[in-house]
Formats: sequence, C-alpha cells, structure tokens
Amino acid sequence: MAELPIAYVAVVGAGADVAPALLAQAETVGALLARQGAVVVTGGLGGIMEAACRGARMVGGTTLGLLPGEDRAAANRWVSVAVATGMGELRNGLVVRCADALIAVGGEYGTLSEIALALSAGTPVVGIGSWEIEGVRVAADALEAVALVLDVAAA
Amino acid sequence: MAELPIAYVAVVGAGADVAPALLAQAETVGALLARQGAVVVTGGLGGIMEAACRGARMVGGTTLGLLPGEDRAAANRWVSVAVATGMGELRNGLVVRCADALIAVGGEYGTLSEIALALSAGTPVVGIGSWEIEGVRVAADALEAVALVLDVAAA
Amino acid sequence: MAELPIAYVAVVGAGADVAPALLAQAETVGALLARQGAVVVTGGLGGIMEAACRGARMVGGTTLGLLPGEDRAAANRWVSVAVATGMGELRNGLVVRCADALIAVGGEYGTLSEIALALSAGTPVVGIGSWEIEGVRVAADALEAVALVLDVAAA
Amino acid sequence: MAELPIAYVAVVGAGADVAPALLAQAETVGALLARQGAVVVTGGLGGIMEAACRGARMVGGTTLGLLPGEDRAAANRWVSVAVATGMGELRNGLVVRCADALIAVGGEYGTLSEIALALSAGTPVVGIGSWEIEGVRVAADALEAVALVLDVAAA
Repeated sequence: MAELPIAYVAVVGAGADVAPALLAQAETVGALLARQGAVVVTGGLGGIMEAACRGARMVGGTTLGLLPGEDRAAANRWVSVAVATGMGELRNGLVVRCADALIAVGGEYGTLSEIALALSAGTPVVGIGSWEIEGVRVAADALEAVALVLDVAAA
Repeated sequence: MAELPIAYVAVVGAGADVAPALLAQAETVGALLARQGAVVVTGGLGGIMEAACRGARMVGGTTLGLLPGEDRAAANRWVSVAVATGMGELRNGLVVRCADALIAVGGEYGTLSEIALALSAGTPVVGIGSWEIEGVRVAADALEAVALVLDVAAA
Repeated sequence: MAELPIAYVAVVGAGADVAPALLAQAETVGALLARQGAVVVTGGLGGIMEAACRGARMVGGTTLGLLPGEDRAAANRWVSVAVATGMGELRNGLVVRCADALIAVGGEYGTLSEIALALSAGTPVVGIGSWEIEGVRVAADALEAVALVLDVAAA
Repeated sequence: MAELPIAYVAVVGAGADVAPALLAQAETVGALLARQGAVVVTGGLGGIMEAACRGARMVGGTTLGLLPGEDRAAANRWVSVAVATGMGELRNGLVVRCADALIAVGGEYGTLSEIALALSAGTPVVGIGSWEIEGVRVAADALEAVALVLDVAAA
C-alpha cells in the first residue's frame, strides 16, 4: 500500500438532486485525489458520491463505497470495493472513521452529520458550497479543496 | 410499556465543561420528560448527559445510556440501563435512532452530529442554547423545550 | 444501580418454533435472574427472548431488548427498555457485549453466533439444551443454569 | 465491476498461532479466488487473514480488510482496501455481510461466530480443518473449497 500521509479521503454530499456544477466539482475532486494515490471513500450511492467515484476511476484510482443497506447492488458502478454495511445512517460514522480527511460538496443533513463527526474526531474537513460550520475550511473549487487537504497532510 | 406518542426522548450535549445554567436546564428537561412517562436516552457519560439522567431519576423515571466504550462502569450513576456499545462515536447514531425526539442542550461537534442525524431521519429536534441549524426548534428553557416536543407529538 | 458482580445477563435463543419445555425454562431463568437483581438482556423479539423477559418482569425485574430492526414496536411486551438498533444481526454482538454472562436456551445459528462471540470475549456461557461447544457449561435446567452463572460471579 | 455470481468471498480464521499447513491452504484459497475475479474479504489482521490476502495479491487480486480497531495501520500489508471499523468483534458480522460465500480455515471462537452468522443468513460456508457444524461443507484442501464455492454459485 502507498504510504501517503493522507491515504484515504472521504468525499461526501447528497445522493440526488445535486446541481450539475457541484457534480462536476465532485468528479474533479475524485480525479485529483486518485492522482495523488488516495483511496476515495464515499457512501457508495448516487449524486456526489457517484461523481467522485467516477472521477477517481477515470484516472485509474480506487474507490471504497460504504453502503447503508445490505445489498451490494445499490453501489454506483464506479465503486471498486463495496461494503454493504446494513447499518443505515450509522454508516456515515464509518465513512468518517475510514478517512484521513473529508471533502464535503454541497450536501444536506446527512452530510452535516459527517462533517460534525469528522470535526469531533479532529479529522480535517474542507467544504465546497457546503455547510459553513466553524472548523470547516472553505474552498472555491475542487483544485483548492484538494490543495487544502494536501496542505494539512504536509503540516 | 406506556403507549405514549413520544415514548423515548434523547437529551444530548457535551460531556464536560458545561455552563452550570445549561446543566440546570438539562436536569429540568430530564425531570419533565420523566414525568410525562418518557424514557430519557443519553450517551451515558457526564455533563449534560448526567444532568438529564439525574433529573429523570429524581422523579422516578427511567434512563437509557448508550456508551461509546465497552466498559459499563463509565456510565454516570443515574443511568438505569446501560449499553456499552464499544462502537465509539458511531453510538451517536444509535442515540438518535432510539429516540422519537431529540433535545440538544448546548453542545459541541458530537452534539451537532446527533442533531444532523435526527434532522436527516425526520426526528424532531429542539435546541436550548445549541446549534441553530435550519430545522432545529429553538427553546428558551427546559419548559419550552419539553412543551415543543409534546406539541410535535400531538400534531 | 446495583453493584452485583454479575449485573447484566443475556438470555439468548430462537425467536419462534420453540418447544414449550424450553420456553418454560427461559421464563424461569428470567425470573431467577431478576430476583438476583440482574438486568435481563435479550434480542427483544419472541420465543425464548419473550419468555425470559416475561419471567423477569413478572417478579419486578428490568429487561433490555436490543432489536435488529429500526422499529421499537417489534419488541415483545415484556421489554422494559428497547433499543431499535437497525443493525440487523450485528446486534447479536451488542447483546453479548452488554452481558456479564450468557445463558443460551436451545437455539439456532443466531444463538450459536452469540455463544461463539461470548466465548471469544471470555464471557461465561451456560447452555440449556443448546449447542454443546467446548467452553459452554451445560445445565439441566433453569435453576442449575442460574446457579452456574452465580458460581462464576463468585469465583 | 465484474458481474460474477460469487463476487466477494470471505476467508476467515485465526490471526495467530496457525499451523503452517493451514496458512498454506489459506494462501492458495486466496490465490484461487482472486483468479476467479472475486474480491477476498478478511478481518484484515494476521495469520489466516494475512495468508489469504497474500495469495490474492500475488496473482493481482483485490483484498478488503475489515479491521476491529480504529487504526488502519493494523492491517496486514496485503490488504488493498482497509476499513478501520472501530467496532471490535462486531466487525465479524460485517465480514459475513459483505460476502457471498465464506471459507473458514481452522479457527477459534471468532471464526465460529462468523460461520454461525453466515449460516444464519443463508450464506454458503465451506470449512478446511475448521468447525464441523451442521451446514458447513467440509473441504479437504483449498482446491476443493474453492470448487465447492463455485458449485454453489453455479447452482
């Protein structure tokens, strides 16, 4: 395995009804992370999760999908390795636990729960058009978000 | 078991370094909920969790403590029934899942994760001096908080 | 809370299609444990779980039901405090983790998983008409099972 | 993703103090499964888990390691994708839930819990020198074990 300081990065956001501009950001985030050798961790479903996985896989990366249900078939087609946790929204905590950093792209309450769990654990959080909670680093776009994550890793 | 519309209510907040005024609110919340016959659900530790449990037990109520660690002895002394989940912060999701409504008293990131998970699940959330996230009903004190919870139950 | 050496005891077994003689044993086990002041922990459903809870409640005891699903209404009517874990069979591990000792009454594969997890954790296991795995203490009936559990506690 | 009938197979067994002959079987099992295109799922630690992962990786396969602790560094070096669940032995249930079939090689009580959970869920179980519980298909060696798994898949 690669010995990167930031080896697993979660990309979190809504699973549906996402603005195209945010989907594009998520896809670019996935690609940039994969090029750095990071495993891209998501909740495995659609929307932001699928866009991030697609970006990562397009450049040959690896994606881990932690699904809420028990059926692996619910994973989007860009998930390399799927874990059908059957734990419902408790899997949000697993997404956070697996990750060395978290990038939130837009997102609803589920995303907010992941941001809060990450901040509580001391895991760096970067947001693109997401919840502006104290502690979240705000990035204008995918490039800045990934740069912020790498900055944290180098610090 | 009582067949109340709101039978289990979670009281969430920080486990330490809590202002005395908030502790007093949490204790009153616990007592008022217990008088309504509700089981008071908490994370089982100190601070707001302990105050809510103490309030509930003082009036003869029942409290459920869902601990992060594997050691039941970590429960505060006012927990009636303790579940040492050994799941760390994933237990926040269990606290939310067990509850028909959630009252947040102050609180840090862990509390925010519980608020977000509850809102995501459609569980009513009332806050006293807590995170003012869209969807959280703001109460000035314990009496108003419990009244809001009962209003929701009657609706 | 009582400060017994064995404060929480799990009673595990099948949820349906149980021989009446085993149901009677489970009910007696529940009553005897409750008289010792122990909280009776079960998976919260029918069959052996319900019988043990009924026995405990009949003598004024407290029962904790850790349900596999997200719906508290699935709990049998003798559960004092219900936790709707929503974790499916992963809740078997929680039943074991909560308990200082485990009494298995009959039981299918799910029961075997609980026996194995308990033995793996070093938690004493007593069986009545159950799986005869090395490490399981075999009891002829409820009285002997509870006596064996108390023996372990005193050791 | 490959659309195999049996896409994820768990290989379970002890993490230490394993006879060399069993380690060799586990390594061969891993290699044969990977050649069939299956993702090899393990608990991510040493012993049988490590041997199965090594076999799979040696032939270019993918391995998923579901660790009990919160530290990804505990994974053996042949794990492709690690999930540090922080759930302790509850992760045994996740290993089973992720898998379309389970091959047990030797093993202690933890392994027995996985066998029992798999049988309870209707997941096929093959054992090599493992627990001979009703429902477990017994294989003499790695070749037979993988053949039995493929037979089940084709049925």
